Amino acid sequence: MRTSWPSAVRLVEVGARDGLQNENAPLPVSVRVELIRRLVGAGLKSVEAGAFVSPKWVPQMDGSAEVLARVLAGPPRTGATVGAAAGVVAGGVTGGSAGEVAGGVDYPVLVPNLQGLEAALAAGAQTVAVFAAASDTFSQRNIHCSIAESLERFRTVAGAARTAGVKLRGYVSCVAGCPYEGAIAPQAVAGVAAALRALGCDEISLGDTIGTGNPDSIRRMLEAVLREVPAERLAGHYHDTYGMAVANVYASLELGLTVFDAAVGGLGGCPYAPGASGNVATEELVWLFDGLGIATGVDLEALVDTAVWIGNRLGRAPASRVARAVLARRRSGH
Amino acid sequence: MRTSWPSAVRLVEVGARDGLQNENAPLPVSVRVELIRRLVGAGLKSVEAGAFVSPKWVPQMDGSAEVLARVLAGPPRTGATVGAAAGVVAGGVTGGSAGEVAGGVDYPVLVPNLQGLEAALAAGAQTVAVFAAASDTFSQRNIHCSIAESLERFRTVAGAARTAGVKLRGYVSCVAGCPYEGAIAPQAVAGVAAALRALGCDEISLGDTIGTGNPDSIRRMLEAVLREVPAERLAGHYHDTYGMAVANVYASLELGLTVFDAAVGGLGGCPYAPGASGNVATEELVWLFDGLGIATGVDLEALVDTAVWIGNRLGRAPASRVARAVLARRRSGH
Repeated sequence: MRTSWPSAVRLVEVGARDGLQNENAPLPVSVRVELIRRLVGAGLKSVEAGAFVSPKWVPQMDGSAEVLARVLAGPPRTGATVGAAAGVVAGGVTGGSAGEVAGGVDYPVLVPNLQGLEAALAAGAQTVAVFAAASDTFSQRNIHCSIAESLERFRTVAGAARTAGVKLRGYVSCVAGCPYEGAIAPQAVAGVAAALRALGCDEISLGDTIGTGNPDSIRRMLEAVLREVPAERLAGHYHDTYGMAVANVYASLELGLTVFDAAVGGLGGCPYAPGASGNVATEELVWLFDGLGIATGVDLEALVDTAVWIGNRLGRAPASRVARAVLARRRSGH
Repeated sequence: MRTSWPSAVRLVEVGARDGLQNENAPLPVSVRVELIRRLVGAGLKSVEAGAFVSPKWVPQMDGSAEVLARVLAGPPRTGATVGAAAGVVAGGVTGGSAGEVAGGVDYPVLVPNLQGLEAALAAGAQTVAVFAAASDTFSQRNIHCSIAESLERFRTVAGAARTAGVKLRGYVSCVAGCPYEGAIAPQAVAGVAAALRALGCDEISLGDTIGTGNPDSIRRMLEAVLREVPAERLAGHYHDTYGMAVANVYASLELGLTVFDAAVGGLGGCPYAPGASGNVATEELVWLFDGLGIATGVDLEALVDTAVWIGNRLGRAPASRVARAVLARRRSGH
């Protein structure tokens, strides 16, 4: 245990993108907009809004331009109490100036290529994210090119993003294990992270895509990455497929990371193990950080409300332990 | 991270007691016997068999004498493949000699008082457990006496257990928080643990009964307890109510603990938050320790089979993330 923790961490809410992208049923734009507004209302300041990828491959992300434009257009609702109505605030895209975030909130979107970037910029994107993998087989199956080819493609995207003055996030998937290759060497992750940093990524999110990492393997991976990229440029993105994500976040915090990705209600699943758990639930991380005395700016009760709300849209209860406990406590009146 | 881990840890499977005790529907003796046999078949060597408490208060534990006698009577099934039939092996109680465990397997049972101890001894118990709390309010509400009074009562039980030559386990509940008092001081836990050790408890299980502990608070608690009782006499018993249990186990491992309680399929709930998660799932801990290269002796696939089997008896799917992931992997044929 470090003798002192940072006073605050930043949570990047990925439920409306990484979460919904891995849910079977595509949700309409209006529901996704409302979800993002509720997340902002709960206090989240970094909320992924969508992915500018082909709806042929990812139908769940169809309409991301409209989602992004709408959330940028309206002032996000504030406070813990949000109404049930999904009315969309009228108005055009505001705050389009480069690199700024609307109302103090950042809405990153994924862009696989230059075409995606242009569409994202047209919709008002202020932060875009590219995604590479630490496993060549995964890269081939997921984005149909080698790691090296993907980085070469991102060079053009990164250059254009820089010219447009938007922030750039880089994802590395399979940082602990790959569904095809098994365990991934820490040095492979470090190499991809270093390359993304060299391309100009402001932040690099390290994704344990299939959730096979444990505190020891995540630590070994981070130790290798930290030799290439400083902690303040890194985010931990851990899936809870095997229940290890909270422990992995804690281990990462000990190594100096202060940005963590999570999805409200543990949205999303694992495309490589349908029926398994997906992203670590944002509630679990808020609860952890609250307990450690580290500020997140997120209101846990409002977040649980949001988990219930989106769960209802998906026809199921929130998957997170914290949401279940908070709901149980409310029912019992404690 | 410690530079080296122990080569092995011991898991104490509490599903058939702490788990089922907190499930609404009492299960018949035959199902509980079959559950215990399957757990032993999966490789668990310490399997709680029941509680010698009044069925008026805990109907789920009614018939514990018969459960214990039956599991002691028959050679436990071995191997990962166990049939679905719940046929009970005929025969009397064997291996009654004091302090020995039947077939290398220990079947602890809870005894609240001398009457319970006598019934447990008559059924062949080789390990009995007493239970105290680190919160006076919890003690009053749970066992209707103060902590001091409970320890005085256990003095008689401990003496009789020693005379009978059986092993004695002591539980401390509310080691991190209490549903009535909130946070519990580490020193309060240390005091109760020291008292239980002085009474002759061979092992003291530290229970985060309501799962509010996090790696920092568990560490602070353990540091206080370790000044009174050596690590080799302690067990970590963490509930996963807020998803912190795996991280808490990891933190405890770093402080030298090598015994952990868990329940197959995350059986049990939280009587103070009905609907919330209960014990940490044994699968999660087996998966963690497998990943850390620490032996548990447990076959994860057989354990998941057992989680599914008991889940079917309770009319629900296993609550553990690992079981869900393993089942998903099996369905997808990976």
